[in-house]
Amino acid sequence: MTDVDTVTDTTEAELDGLLNAAVAAAPVLAATRPSARAGWLRAVADALDADAERLIPLAAEESHLGVPRLTGELKRTTFQLRLFADVLDEGAYLQVTIDHADPTWGMGPRPDLRRMLRPLGPVAIWAASNFPFAFSVAGGDTASALAAGTPVLLKAHPGHPRLSVATGDIVVKALRDAGAPDGTFALVTGVEIGRALITDPRIAAGAFTGSLKGGRALFDLASSRPAPIPFYGELGSVNPSVVTPSAAAARAEEVASGFADSMTLGVGQFCTKPGLLFVPAGSALPALVATRLAAVAGAPMLNESIARGYSGALGELASHEGVSVVAGGEGGDAPAPSLLTTSAAEFLKDPETLTHEAFGPAALVIEYADTAELQRAIGVIDGQLTATVQAVDDDPDAAAVLPLLAERAGRVLVNGWPTGVSVTWAMQHGGPYPATTSVQTTSVGTAAIDRFLRPVSYQGTPDALLPEPLRESNPWSLPRRVDGVQER
Amino acid sequence: MTDVDTVTDTTEAELDGLLNAAVAAAPVLAATRPSARAGWLRAVADALDADAERLIPLAAEESHLGVPRLTGELKRTTFQLRLFADVLDEGAYLQVTIDHADPTWGMGPRPDLRRMLRPLGPVAIWAASNFPFAFSVAGGDTASALAAGTPVLLKAHPGHPRLSVATGDIVVKALRDAGAPDGTFALVTGVEIGRALITDPRIAAGAFTGSLKGGRALFDLASSRPAPIPFYGELGSVNPSVVTPSAAAARAEEVASGFADSMTLGVGQFCTKPGLLFVPAGSALPALVATRLAAVAGAPMLNESIARGYSGALGELASHEGVSVVAGGEGGDAPAPSLLTTSAAEFLKDPETLTHEAFGPAALVIEYADTAELQRAIGVIDGQLTATVQAVDDDPDAAAVLPLLAERAGRVLVNGWPTGVSVTWAMQHGGPYPATTSVQTTSVGTAAIDRFLRPVSYQGTPDALLPEPLRESNPWSLPRRVDGVQER
Repeated sequence: MTDVDTVTDTTEAELDGLLNAAVAAAPVLAATRPSARAGWLRAVADALDADAERLIPLAAEESHLGVPRLTGELKRTTFQLRLFADVLDEGAYLQVTIDHADPTWGMGPRPDLRRMLRPLGPVAIWAASNFPFAFSVAGGDTASALAAGTPVLLKAHPGHPRLSVATGDIVVKALRDAGAPDGTFALVTGVEIGRALITDPRIAAGAFTGSLKGGRALFDLASSRPAPIPFYGELGSVNPSVVTPSAAAARAEEVASGFADSMTLGVGQFCTKPGLLFVPAGSALPALVATRLAAVAGAPMLNESIARGYSGALGELASHEGVSVVAGGEGGDAPAPSLLTTSAAEFLKDPETLTHEAFGPAALVIEYADTAELQRAIGVIDGQLTATVQAVDDDPDAAAVLPLLAERAGRVLVNGWPTGVSVTWAMQHGGPYPATTSVQTTSVGTAAIDRFLRPVSYQGTPDALLPEPLRESNPWSLPRRVDGVQER
Repeated sequence: MTDVDTVTDTTEAELDGLLNAAVAAAPVLAATRPSARAGWLRAVADALDADAERLIPLAAEESHLGVPRLTGELKRTTFQLRLFADVLDEGAYLQVTIDHADPTWGMGPRPDLRRMLRPLGPVAIWAASNFPFAFSVAGGDTASALAAGTPVLLKAHPGHPRLSVATGDIVVKALRDAGAPDGTFALVTGVEIGRALITDPRIAAGAFTGSLKGGRALFDLASSRPAPIPFYGELGSVNPSVVTPSAAAARAEEVASGFADSMTLGVGQFCTKPGLLFVPAGSALPALVATRLAAVAGAPMLNESIARGYSGALGELASHEGVSVVAGGEGGDAPAPSLLTTSAAEFLKDPETLTHEAFGPAALVIEYADTAELQRAIGVIDGQLTATVQAVDDDPDAAAVLPLLAERAGRVLVNGWPTGVSVTWAMQHGGPYPATTSVQTTSVGTAAIDRFLRPVSYQGTPDALLPEPLRESNPWSLPRRVDGVQER
């Protein structure tokens, strides 16, 4: 099925060589016209699509996620690469800003100033296990970093080692064939290599999707370096969902089935899985969700480590005082879905434990007495990737909770479910800590490119010495803000 | 001269009350139309201008900076408040992005998604000693945070305590009279209060201009919190300046006088003071600079602590092996300017020590043998706020060093000097660490507002539940990107 049979760890000497190659490539990438890098991204997308028939079965074998899901995920992955190519062709991401010299400027004469974003330099990216394509070797972090013009060292996830090597080979070859310099992209593997990457002075930023524990450890290393670097960690979330009394009365069946489907999609192994469901006390929703879940068979999880973590987290929740098991309750290698319930009053006693993420097909239903109690319960929840409201038209309870949810989430949804994240200009994935270590950024959507750029201003610089985007004649036809006015 | 005679430290109980007031004000500010907040900023600017005759002498008394400089600085400060008001009136800073639902979207049907930036919540700002107006109580950090819609707790600098209280009173009254809620702004004072601020869970971000040691300590506290927060520190810089051989031959007198003036402006107490000057070996520049410096009288420094720090740093440089004193060489309360020299070869032996900032009227001239040696020397310099090249037209040496300088600075200048920072759309102040703890941000220029905002996306949300900027009818007439296309 594949020519990749054994995967060996990257040695220290190999890593050193790859880092030096990335450092050498960085100024070449920074000087490359964005539309040329767009060509590289499209070449990678084309090469992945061309190899779909080899890659998808390999991914299925290593991840247990199934061919239909993985076919859609590869489509998303190559779509994403091409969308970033479009971002490069447009060029607004460079934020070109030109202020001509002005002797009448209100605070005193102003010199000629020209500002743009430029790539940070080589970055380290950690692949995730639960998206073997879309958050892995050629996933969104890689696409946005290459779009920004930063060389990428990609730490493979041990959950899909042969797929990682196969994908990495395709990326390296496609980039080379498209004219990218050596050092633009490299795959690295090994348990200990993450620490070496994040502490290496040649690395300018890190991006990670994974567990709170592992991500926080890397964030702490990045922040405590002699020269700290940005670390973009997206560290899990319980994605609270709220059903208003009116929605519970009017749309209980639809809400129950939508919730059950979302929490069990991909065996519950999404960072956007809705793990908390707030319902009015006495509603039929817990029973309806449990009925729907009874029809969902157990399925194998991504790997043994995730199955073990899920069993432990589920056990902790199920045995918590005041929590009852309505469905399932057991972990295992191919767990059936679990539904637990508690009251908002109990939740308010120990929100920290009851918002621990159980990464798998489990959720906790929290029954609230009234809107005031619901608001108090929302008020104690930490930062989240998403927050959802199920409501009816002109629902006063939706208006009462939506602003509270927007204060603690990166994305709020009304009458939708948080799994199935689209890749668009307006998508925001990151939310306040611990959902994200860097509250101002996103790993999904076109704004993900911003993480790998920094601004530089040029003052009084002759046209010939300016980078092309800042030259007066606008040779690359970029959108610009000139003397305070946005131009197209 | 002022009604402020004694300044007492903020107590723990007072701080707790101020933080609660800020938390209560935060959602009110977030819901306020930007053009209304623009009115608040203009009201603060007007109130400061109206009290100039009281404030400027008080600032002169406490800072020793002199009335002409302080008059200009207050003008800059109120200009800056009004420029941020213009930013709010335009509204592009909200980055409103709308993607309508699209069943034909390439990766699969896309829901309606709408993204904007919203304020982070209450922020803590540390005033700087060297700009008693422009980087202090009503300075750029306060202006950009209030513009963003985040309540501000402002830690006064002990170097100008009475001016701080007087300015704080004006800000509080002007905001209240303009309709801002209580809790929008508060001044706090005290030595220990900084630690309490940066570790308090009610504070969402910190902004600081000052020493590397103090700033790094606060950065470490911000990063090691249970829930880390962004910390925007701008921690000093030696602002390397390079004179090409052609410029040294053609414009030596002009370069020498420009450099001497810039390094002694404000008694050398600017974070953008040029502290390193690279000149071709054998050039007349060191002697010419020394001649010009001989005409600059010693002047009192901001305060005793800064004078002590300067004397220590100057002494360390002057006694370093391979460094010679060409002019001055002594610290003191009102130090005469100092010029030191060394060779690039010596510099390359110990760049860490020789790039220590001496915050005061001292600079180190480094003589380089050729362009290759100059490039090597630039290559070992850490992150800087600014980097300058003095060149002639079509100067190949300028082209050879400018990209290297742009890699390690936030602002590069050609044939200018880095002091006298303008406030414009295209200004960038922050540079790579240690010049800035947050390489992607700036404390000067309109982009400073970005530090206090974070993105939120709304998915499938009925118009009535959306914040005004995201509603379909665009009630606030904001610039928007709709379905990938930037509109005006």
